[in-house]
Amino acid sequence: MNTRPSAFSGTLAAVALSDLRTSKPLVHCLTNDVVQSFTANVLLALHASPAMVVDAAEAAQFSPIADAVLINVGTLTQPQADAMLAAVHAANLAGKPWVLDPVAVGGLSLRTEFCRQLLRLTPAAIRGNASEILALSGLTSTGRGVDSGDDSLSALPAAYALARETGAIVAVTGEIDYVTDGERSVAVAGGDALMTRVVGTGCALSAVVAAFVSLPGDRLHNVAAACRVMSCAGELACRTARGPGSFIPAFLDNLWLLQADALEQEVQP
Amino acid sequence: MNTRPSAFSGTLAAVALSDLRTSKPLVHCLTNDVVQSFTANVLLALHASPAMVVDAAEAAQFSPIADAVLINVGTLTQPQADAMLAAVHAANLAGKPWVLDPVAVGGLSLRTEFCRQLLRLTPAAIRGNASEILALSGLTSTGRGVDSGDDSLSALPAAYALARETGAIVAVTGEIDYVTDGERSVAVAGGDALMTRVVGTGCALSAVVAAFVSLPGDRLHNVAAACRVMSCAGELACRTARGPGSFIPAFLDNLWLLQADALEQEVQP
Amino acid sequence: MNTRPSAFSGTLAAVALSDLRTSKPLVHCLTNDVVQSFTANVLLALHASPAMVVDAAEAAQFSPIADAVLINVGTLTQPQADAMLAAVHAANLAGKPWVLDPVAVGGLSLRTEFCRQLLRLTPAAIRGNASEILALSGLTSTGRGVDSGDDSLSALPAAYALARETGAIVAVTGEIDYVTDGERSVAVAGGDALMTRVVGTGCALSAVVAAFVSLPGDRLHNVAAACRVMSCAGELACRTARGPGSFIPAFLDNLWLLQADALEQEVQP
Repeated sequence: MNTRPSAFSGTLAAVALSDLRTSKPLVHCLTNDVVQSFTANVLLALHASPAMVVDAAEAAQFSPIADAVLINVGTLTQPQADAMLAAVHAANLAGKPWVLDPVAVGGLSLRTEFCRQLLRLTPAAIRGNASEILALSGLTSTGRGVDSGDDSLSALPAAYALARETGAIVAVTGEIDYVTDGERSVAVAGGDALMTRVVGTGCALSAVVAAFVSLPGDRLHNVAAACRVMSCAGELACRTARGPGSFIPAFLDNLWLLQADALEQEVQP
Repeated sequence: MNTRPSAFSGTLAAVALSDLRTSKPLVHCLTNDVVQSFTANVLLALHASPAMVVDAAEAAQFSPIADAVLINVGTLTQPQADAMLAAVHAANLAGKPWVLDPVAVGGLSLRTEFCRQLLRLTPAAIRGNASEILALSGLTSTGRGVDSGDDSLSALPAAYALARETGAIVAVTGEIDYVTDGERSVAVAGGDALMTRVVGTGCALSAVVAAFVSLPGDRLHNVAAACRVMSCAGELACRTARGPGSFIPAFLDNLWLLQADALEQEVQP
Repeated sequence: MNTRPSAFSGTLAAVALSDLRTSKPLVHCLTNDVVQSFTANVLLALHASPAMVVDAAEAAQFSPIADAVLINVGTLTQPQADAMLAAVHAANLAGKPWVLDPVAVGGLSLRTEFCRQLLRLTPAAIRGNASEILALSGLTSTGRGVDSGDDSLSALPAAYALARETGAIVAVTGEIDYVTDGERSVAVAGGDALMTRVVGTGCALSAVVAAFVSLPGDRLHNVAAACRVMSCAGELACRTARGPGSFIPAFLDNLWLLQADALEQEVQP
């Protein structure tokens, strides 16, 4: 990268959210066992529709009907990898975008080899934390498990490289989220540390990225809008939450109720 | 059908709910990956007991011990289909009722073929949306994925035909739920559109139908009672919910606290 | 046992909780399909980190990196059993503790045979209800499914026997929890009946036991501390909950906010 990422415009986020609520995309989610319900509820709160179809033959039948596909390797097994490949190939044939969430990629063999295979299949977007984006780009990482040991800014060069290699929009998320297409980049601030004490906020963000990449318009902006919508609802939820338990319903309510003016209050990264 | 469905009596719903809380049925749930936790919590809030036993050999051992079995094909895989068949056969041998939720049946091959096979194994009840009931009866549907593109009333003739073909009570649910045994039918009003913005309300209803079909008495009324209990708790929850997030805990609380007088306030379909 | 179990000290529970929040253990959870999300959120609310890595080869790679491993057989399948064995062997080689939750062991063949195999692999702790501990020790039980038909005190002799046979700390939980190392035992009171109307409180306790057994110090006390932390947060949550729905967020919030003084208010068993 040659320039400091610019702050993403809240107005653009509000326009994209409005588009999403109108188009109500159907997102085919092939995701991990832990976050299925939360992921579905996040999409529903945004007026999108989730569908989890997991048999390989059915996944290939369903992807072309969906508006976007999410591939999350958090609890990958070989049968699931087979279904994911079938879904991705069918989505590509039908011209439907798909998004990769490379959970905990790096040290674990099945998912790491599988993610490298997926990178050659033209993902529309990749969303990971700093450790995951570093690992996926072939650079080193200090991460252990699903939590990132790295700062998101430190992974921005890796995100640029990965975007150029794959053609995907790459979002490296953390305290600040950075989104790049390999040429341009934007920074999305906001959110709250409490969001890391609830399982699935990152995984659900990837599903929301999938919903947003199905929209027309500048895909870099659409992915950044997904990040801003989630961080903004998280901020609002933290104003009333006593802890991570009450955060969950408050977060879903705020996704449901989210208004343009909240998104347009710029947060300086 | 020759007659307009009559409104289901709230008094009958209250009696059935009281019976359910006394008998505390154990429901063996073979259901999809997305709704496992919510389904279990809905049953627990009604004083029923959920159990998910998924290995084929164990499922066959467990079904005869349970009071009813739920088969939900939302995330069907071949190993799961094998376990479901084993559970259904064992339940039938033991004289225990089982309920089918044919999620997204129609266009997807594995589940559609499997559901047709299951129809020959004497389900006690079938609960689906209009698209699913239409597809299962062999009639056409406009549905895409798990959301119905059809009105529940439009599927009532298909529900009658399916009930006659299988001997099951068939519930076609939507803004108004219709329940038929192939001769009689009742209409259950209530609920709230917000319920469709929370994943698993339909799937959990099918589990509640399984709990209610384990009760003695008129099975048509018991299935309708399941529908009314869920729609009534949903209405009450929507009075306090800010959105789909706060709906979830409020819904479970209202199932737990539900009193006869709320059920007896007739809602005109 | 020769002596009546002594009441576990709230002060010791508070010290262990403080240690847990400082050490933030990473718990590799191989658990059932129903409770994955709740288990993860419980660990996160206690500042621990959950990770679910389920492929056999990856599970063996991951266990040595984790601080403890949880094995819960609630929805056991043969592929999952293979992954669990791989994880346990790798944990043992790396000197990492692992905990067994023998859900519904007894009448169901796959899990019962598998749990007997696991007992020979030096679990650090075993957490079950009375029926499960009785069944695992080879004594008789009246349980059906996942709910215990037995009183926890009645299973204390079985818990002693099981602890001596395996070298594990054994916790038999119920209205009062009893924890033994085969020589000593302590009683942990508290909790609330409403906790049995929410799925996964017992399964999540086993994950918390896994987090606590990763701490240095007296393992008997660490396991008892896990029981007391959960029962105390449950009591506090029940003060504000209207029912099982609102209990869930309140419980997670109270785990997050739990202070030493609440733990130190002794409850007489």
